[in-house]
Amino acid sequence: MRQTVLHAPRDLRVEDRPRPVVQQPTDAVIRTVATCVCGSDLWDYRGINDVAEPTPGGHEYIGVVEEVGGDVTGIKPGRLVIGSFFASDNTCPNCANGYHTSCLHREFVGGAQAEYVRVPLADGTLVHVPGDVAEEHIPSLLACSDVMGTGWYAARAAEVEPGDTVAVVGDGAVGLCAVIAARELGAERIIAMSRHEPRQKLAREFGATDIVTERGQEGAARIKELTDGIGADAVLECVGTPDAMRQALNSTRPGGNIGFVGVPHGVTIDGAELFFSHVALRGGPAPVRAYLPHLIQLVLDGRINPGKVFDLTLPLEQAAEGYKAMDERRAIKTLLRP
Amino acid sequence: MRQTVLHAPRDLRVEDRPRPVVQQPTDAVIRTVATCVCGSDLWDYRGINDVAEPTPGGHEYIGVVEEVGGDVTGIKPGRLVIGSFFASDNTCPNCANGYHTSCLHREFVGGAQAEYVRVPLADGTLVHVPGDVAEEHIPSLLACSDVMGTGWYAARAAEVEPGDTVAVVGDGAVGLCAVIAARELGAERIIAMSRHEPRQKLAREFGATDIVTERGQEGAARIKELTDGIGADAVLECVGTPDAMRQALNSTRPGGNIGFVGVPHGVTIDGAELFFSHVALRGGPAPVRAYLPHLIQLVLDGRINPGKVFDLTLPLEQAAEGYKAMDERRAIKTLLRP
Repeated sequence: MRQTVLHAPRDLRVEDRPRPVVQQPTDAVIRTVATCVCGSDLWDYRGINDVAEPTPGGHEYIGVVEEVGGDVTGIKPGRLVIGSFFASDNTCPNCANGYHTSCLHREFVGGAQAEYVRVPLADGTLVHVPGDVAEEHIPSLLACSDVMGTGWYAARAAEVEPGDTVAVVGDGAVGLCAVIAARELGAERIIAMSRHEPRQKLAREFGATDIVTERGQEGAARIKELTDGIGADAVLECVGTPDAMRQALNSTRPGGNIGFVGVPHGVTIDGAELFFSHVALRGGPAPVRAYLPHLIQLVLDGRINPGKVFDLTLPLEQAAEGYKAMDERRAIKTLLRP
Repeated sequence: MRQTVLHAPRDLRVEDRPRPVVQQPTDAVIRTVATCVCGSDLWDYRGINDVAEPTPGGHEYIGVVEEVGGDVTGIKPGRLVIGSFFASDNTCPNCANGYHTSCLHREFVGGAQAEYVRVPLADGTLVHVPGDVAEEHIPSLLACSDVMGTGWYAARAAEVEPGDTVAVVGDGAVGLCAVIAARELGAERIIAMSRHEPRQKLAREFGATDIVTERGQEGAARIKELTDGIGADAVLECVGTPDAMRQALNSTRPGGNIGFVGVPHGVTIDGAELFFSHVALRGGPAPVRAYLPHLIQLVLDGRINPGKVFDLTLPLEQAAEGYKAMDERRAIKTLLRP
């Protein structure tokens, strides 16, 4: 089968690789209908994370179940399914608490930019998409596999409540999906921080009421100005850099919450500064599995359309161009069709 | 009037000082009925915080209103009142959000180990104690001025809910009051971390169901053992050292919360570690004012008795011995009678 493989920084190839098979009786193998390139794939692509050996890319997928192991009872061959980038059993105490990405048996699902993907713990990990699915819903359903689920978690981690003022740091696909989540959770005012016109436009379409183009201290000062000097009730940090975290901390009101979903790279937090801010912090890899049934329904009901973050669609064979376009910020997010 | 003054590390004296007067029309001056020594006073006493000049000590007080400024309307001369270590207007947006210690007009109330104390923003800061107060309630009412309010905030910041398993790091007066708070908020299991027998005993009396004597990694491992390998739902960090914070982080389950109320000294938090822990952190100087009416009522109803943390009572004149006993851990907390 065809699959992307990263050989070195910015050396992304599509190659013939062995088609995955059921290895454990709890596995499923799915034939992908659509996959995509994640902002976090770019950490490897840009050489910011070390890549020691040629590594298959991607971890977002929607597909049709091809084969299941002998212990799989809930997931049926021939059905359209979505899963998250972490396999989870959906039964351990951490899953029961809603933190599937801390599942005691979690396993990373990598190499999803391919024609087939092996998914461990299929019964716990995968969710059937109900009914006949219109082609137009595929991008939004694919978005639920990571970016929409991650944006949702950012808003939940920041405890967004009806009537809140929410600021979103980061205008990538996750940040834009976080705007959708804030709106769905009832935020009254949603301030998107972005200096890129197409992303500002999409943020407004998704529910942003204000755009702040300033960054860093100026950005935080602007948020304070917009909130009577107090700060936002909730700030969704969707980047993962020290600057983004600082901007978030300086934009949140005392008693407010930051949900941080950008994987931190070089971020440290001063205990005394956090203490005197009265701000709460919760982050982590999003427990997408917890939200999938709800998010899938919102998509099928036409209530949310996170698939709009895909502003470039290419055949899997042209994945290298898909990465390049995102690296150069010519595309927000690339959808790949096997 | 008589007042404590710290001249240098471990050089604490009781001296004649000018009696405070109303300076602003929003001030009150109170005649203290009882005051005390705080764990945080020991940071100065031990020379860990720099003390540049002779400094009056203490910030906890219960007293009778002696005099009020012309703009004070709610607080009446002759009434018994309690306030917090931060004066607050009780009307600004941060106060309205329940974070009085981030009041836009906050002002530290220091020098409370004295016969009289000036309290700014009296209408916002002070709370009348209703009815005739029995002498036996004075220590518990005084405790509400800081340690009981701070323990309460630790539990609220950690979002303690009925049925929760709560671990408390620190067996000082705040940690012990945090046990009371966890019990009042409905925690089912309360694990006090303490290796001092008299404090273990008081923790049990206050509602602790388990005692863990191990510290650091061993302490966290013990908490994990007691919680099926998962960690506590909520951890109340009542110390403020790097070790205590690390112990708290390692003791909390994914999705759980840490409330940290020990003023951080040298604490830094690694962003990636916090991220992958899925743990939420909220700290800060406790908004005691928000809780005072409720806590006063719990004391007067005989439902809580935080005054038991005072295991040494001395005349104000012997404050030096009161500090010394706490410094040497011979006393949990010293009450001073002017």
